[in-house]
Amino acid sequence: MFRDFEPIGDRPVYIQLKDYMKLIIIKGALQPHQKLPSTRELGVQMKLSRNTVISAYAELEEDGFIYVVRGKGNYVAAVSGGTATQACQIDWLERINDHARLAEQLDLMKHGIRAQKGTISFTSIAPDETLFDIGNVKRAFMDRMSVEGDVLLNYGYAKGYKPLMDFLLRYMQHKGVDLKGKDILITNGFTEGLDIVLSALGKRSGRVLCENPTHHTAIKNFKLHGFQITGIPMEDDGISLTELERALSEQPYDCAYFVPSYHNPTGIVMSPKKRQELMSLMNQYGIPVIEDGFNEELRYTGSHVSPLMAGVGNGNSVIYLGSFSKVLFPGMRVGWVLADAELIDYLESIKRARTIHTSTLDQSVLYQYLHNGNLEKYLKKARTEYKRKYELTMQCCKEHIPYAQLSGHGGLHLFVTFEIGFDTRKLLELCSELGVIFTPGDIFFTDNRGCNTMRLGFSRVTDEDIIRGIKIIGDTARQLMK
Amino acid sequence: MFRDFEPIGDRPVYIQLKDYMKLIIIKGALQPHQKLPSTRELGVQMKLSRNTVISAYAELEEDGFIYVVRGKGNYVAAVSGGTATQACQIDWLERINDHARLAEQLDLMKHGIRAQKGTISFTSIAPDETLFDIGNVKRAFMDRMSVEGDVLLNYGYAKGYKPLMDFLLRYMQHKGVDLKGKDILITNGFTEGLDIVLSALGKRSGRVLCENPTHHTAIKNFKLHGFQITGIPMEDDGISLTELERALSEQPYDCAYFVPSYHNPTGIVMSPKKRQELMSLMNQYGIPVIEDGFNEELRYTGSHVSPLMAGVGNGNSVIYLGSFSKVLFPGMRVGWVLADAELIDYLESIKRARTIHTSTLDQSVLYQYLHNGNLEKYLKKARTEYKRKYELTMQCCKEHIPYAQLSGHGGLHLFVTFEIGFDTRKLLELCSELGVIFTPGDIFFTDNRGCNTMRLGFSRVTDEDIIRGIKIIGDTARQLMK
Repeated sequence: MFRDFEPIGDRPVYIQLKDYMKLIIIKGALQPHQKLPSTRELGVQMKLSRNTVISAYAELEEDGFIYVVRGKGNYVAAVSGGTATQACQIDWLERINDHARLAEQLDLMKHGIRAQKGTISFTSIAPDETLFDIGNVKRAFMDRMSVEGDVLLNYGYAKGYKPLMDFLLRYMQHKGVDLKGKDILITNGFTEGLDIVLSALGKRSGRVLCENPTHHTAIKNFKLHGFQITGIPMEDDGISLTELERALSEQPYDCAYFVPSYHNPTGIVMSPKKRQELMSLMNQYGIPVIEDGFNEELRYTGSHVSPLMAGVGNGNSVIYLGSFSKVLFPGMRVGWVLADAELIDYLESIKRARTIHTSTLDQSVLYQYLHNGNLEKYLKKARTEYKRKYELTMQCCKEHIPYAQLSGHGGLHLFVTFEIGFDTRKLLELCSELGVIFTPGDIFFTDNRGCNTMRLGFSRVTDEDIIRGIKIIGDTARQLMK
Repeated sequence: MFRDFEPIGDRPVYIQLKDYMKLIIIKGALQPHQKLPSTRELGVQMKLSRNTVISAYAELEEDGFIYVVRGKGNYVAAVSGGTATQACQIDWLERINDHARLAEQLDLMKHGIRAQKGTISFTSIAPDETLFDIGNVKRAFMDRMSVEGDVLLNYGYAKGYKPLMDFLLRYMQHKGVDLKGKDILITNGFTEGLDIVLSALGKRSGRVLCENPTHHTAIKNFKLHGFQITGIPMEDDGISLTELERALSEQPYDCAYFVPSYHNPTGIVMSPKKRQELMSLMNQYGIPVIEDGFNEELRYTGSHVSPLMAGVGNGNSVIYLGSFSKVLFPGMRVGWVLADAELIDYLESIKRARTIHTSTLDQSVLYQYLHNGNLEKYLKKARTEYKRKYELTMQCCKEHIPYAQLSGHGGLHLFVTFEIGFDTRKLLELCSELGVIFTPGDIFFTDNRGCNTMRLGFSRVTDEDIIRGIKIIGDTARQLMK
């Protein structure tokens, strides 16, 4: 007894001893009301200081696992409730519903090729963490905690942490958005924003419009919410307005979803003229638009392009979903929904019903970080680095897969289209055996097309790996085409 | 022009100037391709240092709002996309669905009495933030950031941050839970855990069982997920097993929801014997049980009582929803679901589809805080303080409302039952005019009963306010009864 206790790591030893004792009491190795060794005896037995044992016993008493009889010693409390007299095994596969099954089916993390150690992976479009200015995050945290640490750690409001909300409202205003009649809701990121909006949207037609290809998570969420998806093809400068108008004239839609800047997966930035014509068309048909702010900040060249929402003046038909996750710190899970104030009122209630509120700690650290002027400095560094990688990736593609069509004006990925009939999943299989993986493009299409496409995410790939990886892809593709 | 710029607060001035310029460019006060004043001229005009203007211009160029012509100067870029030619006003009240309407109806924050300044409020059961050991949270944060700051700020895994998952698994094991065949999912708190579980549960009967009264948020979520609720009355030591057995024998149920420790709102702790009998009954009928860990840590006296999940051995019918929110830092939004591994697999996919993952920053700070042994010290302090407040509240109630039935074995609130026919909402109305508010108990009942009950949360009320507030409640109640 007691001899198999071995403290490890840097957790306080008396706490490890407390945990160990709890376990043997629960397992019944010590009986209720059994007298425990004195603190001196146990210390000797276990080769620990008497103080450690005293502290552990104090904790066990505090937690109700032992009790003290003055003058006599420490005794094991009767903690076990006893086991239920009937066992019960639930077949959970039988109990779950279609929604859960569909969520699992559409879960890419469960059904893709996993990167082995040493694999060159072009699958990620997450930011490059070597660019993170951790010192500034630490500073922001310490600043906030000193001012209002107790407030931040207690319950907050479903709508969000006010200083961040005010900051983001001004931020959107500086992008040209008219805030009249609008309000903001802080979410756990773009995905939660979309989920909440789709949860609130009535199904008149049960149909949504979007670009084709588009963000896989959006397609997943439309399906999980039971919407039918009509995907509109894209041209070099964005969605095909001709095809869009044809679709609009044929059937009604409950809403549309667009990613106008550094579109995922094509990387295309919709031209200002097209944005204006797009919104005129959507307004003409009275269809709400969900705008995905995605990579707006990663503009490398050219003038600032205003969001779609900026182009509707005081109109209230656009729901803007914003997030800094592709440029800043996705681990923090903070995003926002900017929309008609009446709609936001209902979205707030849904948010409260589901997750109470977004972490106040994260919101406040993000706020302080932004307030201190760190975003501008960080963006400058990030844009330079990502632009460099973008140009390197472009160059390698032009060299090794010159016959393929490349699209992308920047951002964190390139989209590659091979000739019709080329099978990029087959290419992926062969490349993965050679230690290179990428995202097959068909997952971004709404209609099972795109089997000849792939997305190359370069944000987290080193220069050597970009060069080496794309060469392997090129060589393998050439083999495949023979 | 430019003269209405006024820097305020501590945000870097050059950034405030950048924002100001962005706004006037977007509003069209400056025309595309218009030449801007030189940095010297603008500095003089606006009474700012030339360096400030130089920095602001650099940012504006970086963001694509101005462009530089070498040797000539700075020019306004053509940023506006132009406004859509057709305006569109959506009637959002018409567009939202019943789910959104129901969420808003059931949103207590929207439909209750708000505390004015100086009001003595017994509505909250949030922790008392004066007990928060902020220094230890700061330390935990700095520790973690130094070790793996870049990892924490980038995307994590839907299931959770591994060190925290491992910690919580051992934590549950030390409460007597058999981990065989189980797995854990980290959530944004109890509420998200319940929402995800109900999203996955197939509706065979469409009915759930629970204690009556019970946690309002749980009732809200059952309704939002379209479940019919059967509430079982409670006795002094927990749910009435007789009534439960009657309900079980009459109709089928998809699952049951119980809060066995420091039940919300009654504060009752289910006895070990009753827990055993309860689980035997549930297993006999093969009904899954959602266990709400709620206030388990706030045990004031007596032996440790094991969770229901500990009483089913290696059975897999219990889904344990845990959170430290009532004892530690609710602002951080971290909770967990411990259940059958196959079920967790599906819950993970739903979590990923909705919010990607819980903030890694929060999970890691919580982990480090717990690992450093802070929970034990904090709990000791918290239990002492809450026990003191509990006893004071009890004493005041016995003095001022001696005819009312009081229940609660600890935790952060007391439940008060007046005679049948007494209207606590009327009492609330009168008390609120005298500067005292509390939570009317009917919101916790599944069947519109409990109009003669109220919940008194004392965790965040000072001693003087407890004494004064309950006296006012007592005096007012006596008036009402005449």
